[in-house]
Amino acid sequence: MSDQEKLQGQKESLLESLAGTGAALAALVAEVHNADLAEWMQDLPEGDAWRVFESLDIDSRAEVLEHAEDALSGQLVERLTPHQLKDVVETLPADEVVDLLALADAQTAEQVLAFVDDERARGLRELAAHAPDTAGGLMTTEVIAVPQGTRIGDAIKLIRTEGEEAEEGQGLFVLDGGRRPIGYVSDRMLLTHSIHSTVDEMMVEPISVGLEVDQEEAATQIEHYGLTELGVVDAAGALVGIISADDALEVLEEEASEDILKIVGASPVHQTRLPVLKRVMGRLPLQGVTVAGGLATAAIIDLALRDAGEFSPDVDLLRFVPIVIGLAGNVGIQSSTILVRAFATGEVEPDREASVLATETLAGLLIGLICGSASWAVISVTEPATGATAFPLAVGAAIAAAVTFAALLGCLIPMGCRRVGIDPAVVAGPFLITISDISGTALYLVVAHLMLER
Amino acid sequence: MSDQEKLQGQKESLLESLAGTGAALAALVAEVHNADLAEWMQDLPEGDAWRVFESLDIDSRAEVLEHAEDALSGQLVERLTPHQLKDVVETLPADEVVDLLALADAQTAEQVLAFVDDERARGLRELAAHAPDTAGGLMTTEVIAVPQGTRIGDAIKLIRTEGEEAEEGQGLFVLDGGRRPIGYVSDRMLLTHSIHSTVDEMMVEPISVGLEVDQEEAATQIEHYGLTELGVVDAAGALVGIISADDALEVLEEEASEDILKIVGASPVHQTRLPVLKRVMGRLPLQGVTVAGGLATAAIIDLALRDAGEFSPDVDLLRFVPIVIGLAGNVGIQSSTILVRAFATGEVEPDREASVLATETLAGLLIGLICGSASWAVISVTEPATGATAFPLAVGAAIAAAVTFAALLGCLIPMGCRRVGIDPAVVAGPFLITISDISGTALYLVVAHLMLER
Repeated sequence: MSDQEKLQGQKESLLESLAGTGAALAALVAEVHNADLAEWMQDLPEGDAWRVFESLDIDSRAEVLEHAEDALSGQLVERLTPHQLKDVVETLPADEVVDLLALADAQTAEQVLAFVDDERARGLRELAAHAPDTAGGLMTTEVIAVPQGTRIGDAIKLIRTEGEEAEEGQGLFVLDGGRRPIGYVSDRMLLTHSIHSTVDEMMVEPISVGLEVDQEEAATQIEHYGLTELGVVDAAGALVGIISADDALEVLEEEASEDILKIVGASPVHQTRLPVLKRVMGRLPLQGVTVAGGLATAAIIDLALRDAGEFSPDVDLLRFVPIVIGLAGNVGIQSSTILVRAFATGEVEPDREASVLATETLAGLLIGLICGSASWAVISVTEPATGATAFPLAVGAAIAAAVTFAALLGCLIPMGCRRVGIDPAVVAGPFLITISDISGTALYLVVAHLMLER
Repeated sequence: MSDQEKLQGQKESLLESLAGTGAALAALVAEVHNADLAEWMQDLPEGDAWRVFESLDIDSRAEVLEHAEDALSGQLVERLTPHQLKDVVETLPADEVVDLLALADAQTAEQVLAFVDDERARGLRELAAHAPDTAGGLMTTEVIAVPQGTRIGDAIKLIRTEGEEAEEGQGLFVLDGGRRPIGYVSDRMLLTHSIHSTVDEMMVEPISVGLEVDQEEAATQIEHYGLTELGVVDAAGALVGIISADDALEVLEEEASEDILKIVGASPVHQTRLPVLKRVMGRLPLQGVTVAGGLATAAIIDLALRDAGEFSPDVDLLRFVPIVIGLAGNVGIQSSTILVRAFATGEVEPDREASVLATETLAGLLIGLICGSASWAVISVTEPATGATAFPLAVGAAIAAAVTFAALLGCLIPMGCRRVGIDPAVVAGPFLITISDISGTALYLVVAHLMLER
């Protein structure tokens, strides 16, 4: 907790010093971990983020770009000259360089590649050819590998020579004549064994995946086998790269968030950092499915009950309850799920809660207005039999009200839970939906009563 | 994919060889990675799992126990004599030992501790005192640490001496006079620098968390800062243990699954490996909330429309649509979410699909029967005005039918998606709920029509 407070203090000082001189800013950022800087810079206006970035030395710039989400990295890379970008690129591992160059425009990327030496440029081009969500796109090609029978002493000498490039490596692969991995030796093993013994004596079975394997599958393998490094092999089985456990961590966290958010229909990840309109656009397609389903349900009820020969205006009102509670439930659970994940991954700390509450509720209002208008329009056309023009309008207005209220609930309930120490995930689902069902139905009936003067 | 097929072949051979001699079994298991063995043994009857385990040597036994879920480890540990358990314990890192001893009965655990040397036993007892879901519960205490100013050569000598114990470490911490971490040096750095330089020249800023910090928070720190090892410090700030990136992987995967499943009200994780009754019990509390909410919604509609003075039998029928679609939607999304996660984490490979489909549908049927009966009972008592005894019974029966059908859909849709290459997560949520809303409403009206002869 005191670490938390220290970080919060640093963040506030940073915001203050943005108003002051460059020197004060430079002194301050030097004390902050670059991973934290990358996180905070996401909340700054673009110009301020650039001022912070400009005050950093080359190594820190590289690290900030390594830790930052693509949106921020993209902004920063756009402002760098090819020469500045080249300086940064030189200190980063190949896989990070490829990710960065993908964010730059094609011309800049070409200029940067022209600056670096031919062999590295070729390696970078090869790496860039793999789809980003595959093992090939995730791996780094800076690998230490030795043939069978190599003595520990010689292996260590090789690491000394090539170590600059592979300074983030944690071991080496033992290869057969066809460069196929047959063993893995960790640096710790190298350190604890005699330099006269051979790698064969201590190597463990290596685990590898193909270049085209999905990155989530690769990360799952690392977790399943408890590895520090996973080999990546080409179609012939020859080693071409490695994926480390901390690369896997990022992938698993990202993919888990993606799965959760897809299930509730709120992709892509990091919704709280997106502009409100983008959030609305991302969630609309699945609300469309819900509207269509709700209208179909209303039609089924109409069919079933009309056949029975009885009919009353109340039935018409009730036929649309499923669409109201369906939409409200969706939007509520989207907001609450986004917050549960954002709490778990550190995306929303207490200082961002107010802005997230405001923007999520606004997103809910917009979704409600769009879905309410769509329902109004469809019902007006398909069900002229419902009589008064006020009826479809009342349904539309009730949908808008219920959905906005659900978004508000979907934020307030998890935030309240976190404050009093209840696990937000437990109440984010069925509990929230139940409240939103009850309140949505009540709101719908109240709005309908008022508008239909019944 | 061919790796997948190879694994599938090994698994089938294993199942066949269980019928044969012990020698054939031993030869076979020696070729299988212990992480895979641990996974497969979960699907075997307890006696067979024990036969496989018995055919393993000490090191492999230790690794299987390290990779296995608690349910399997618990079964195996129960059958081991204290002496056998001690042999296994000796080859495992301290954090794994503590987890295993927690699964043994108290007497066995004491006997095992009596076998190991005093210092290690004291360390194990201390470690066992931390709550399992905190940094203290996750860390291992086998750490290499040196004072400031230590030369690389001396640091390497220390690793040689203590390396046996810390053979899974990947670097060392540099401590000040109060044993507070002030730097971290990876093994790779030690290998690439001159033995005459000091650790101060190359150490990076260490990141540490307190003993009581939640394990998910600790894992998130490792991901956020891109670490290979995170320090764990006591209240005075002194280093007491480390958590590695691959420990963090397990935690993040587990916690992400937990969050997802809590949101849909289907805890704990690994539902597909639980007995059906346990799954039902775990999901019932939240179905209860949904039933209560649905009944409240029905009451609100009753109140609103009865006040309006109009009323028809159809209204009574429609008042209970929210409860039907609410429950069906819950159960459907529970099954589909369980499968989406189980696909992502490798818990359900194609060979387990049939058994998962059968058990999940059975779970759905049981939940449907229980919730249907509960609704029947409540409606009979609270709403005698609904007249015919057949009415509450029809509502109850319709709930049971709709919920069972939703569970079936919740399995078939993700399985079908995986087969044709669509991401199951995209259809697991709103799309599934929409289908289950429509089919649930239709089923409800059909069942009600048949039972009420209308």
